[in-house]
Amino acid sequence: MIVAAHRLFQRQGYERTGFSEVLAESRAPRGAIYHHFPGGKEELAVAVIRRSADDIASRVNAAASASKPSLALRRYVEETIENLEHTGYEAGCPLAPMVLEASGWSPAIRDATHQAFEGWTTLVSAGLRRSGVPAARARRLASVVIAAIEGAMILARATQDPAPLRAIIAELGPMLDAAVA
Amino acid sequence: MIVAAHRLFQRQGYERTGFSEVLAESRAPRGAIYHHFPGGKEELAVAVIRRSADDIASRVNAAASASKPSLALRRYVEETIENLEHTGYEAGCPLAPMVLEASGWSPAIRDATHQAFEGWTTLVSAGLRRSGVPAARARRLASVVIAAIEGAMILARATQDPAPLRAIIAELGPMLDAAVA
Repeated sequence: MIVAAHRLFQRQGYERTGFSEVLAESRAPRGAIYHHFPGGKEELAVAVIRRSADDIASRVNAAASASKPSLALRRYVEETIENLEHTGYEAGCPLAPMVLEASGWSPAIRDATHQAFEGWTTLVSAGLRRSGVPAARARRLASVVIAAIEGAMILARATQDPAPLRAIIAELGPMLDAAVA
Repeated sequence: MIVAAHRLFQRQGYERTGFSEVLAESRAPRGAIYHHFPGGKEELAVAVIRRSADDIASRVNAAASASKPSLALRRYVEETIENLEHTGYEAGCPLAPMVLEASGWSPAIRDATHQAFEGWTTLVSAGLRRSGVPAARARRLASVVIAAIEGAMILARATQDPAPLRAIIAELGPMLDAAVA
């Protein structure tokens, strides 16, 4: 159910995705979703955000094994491009619609997205610190890279073109390498 | 009506915003909205996207009078931070939710966001070219800056903290100045 909801939230956002659609897509019995998510769609959204936070963290950790920050960035962003192209530009980040649609009325959803962004920023920033970047700058760079990827996924979906993501590889990769050097 | 819809889309996205809410917020008579937007909410959304594209282009042009790209960026991003803080982190970009909620099912909304992003990229990129940056790089830098601001607005709303936007001023400003030098 989390996988099905994740896919639907990525494709069309929070409000448009109904419980019945999640059931149909997951082929879970109707009782299951109410049993596992008594708090309804809001609770399911929080579960999707947490799962997504963990998945992205694993991808960041895998990319971080590269020998230079620019190569880690390239690996991560190329995977992102592949996911988008493979799904007809539907597989965006499921967190962005949650923030835009629900952060105003759902403290639970906003807190979950806050924790996810905070976790990714800490993770990327720790990698840069290990390469010798001072703490404050490492945090700023991590934040810029994460924001740029979030935004570029939106531009790429609007334009059906991976160029905004490729621009990140070309421009932010050298910036990270220079910060480490 | 466009102003009211713009504010509602910024705050809570497309799906959650109903026609009746736009009417209540704009105090327009019920007939007016159907008269001006016979295509319904989708047509209203396209009008909001176009208006927003023009407003942002004016802000970019005003900021571009600064003596260095880093100062233009600072001016634009500081205004963005003020807008967010002034509205309790509600006044995000109205285009982002349109892309995330509607680009999959509405070609009209996707085309309008595509044109808006394309227009901004061309505008920022033209400014960098006038300062001597080669065309291909100017376009990449413009795309990265626009993506980073879009993404940082989402991070800022999730965390209720302008730090992701301030990080753009600190890190991308010097990158732009170096590209011009």
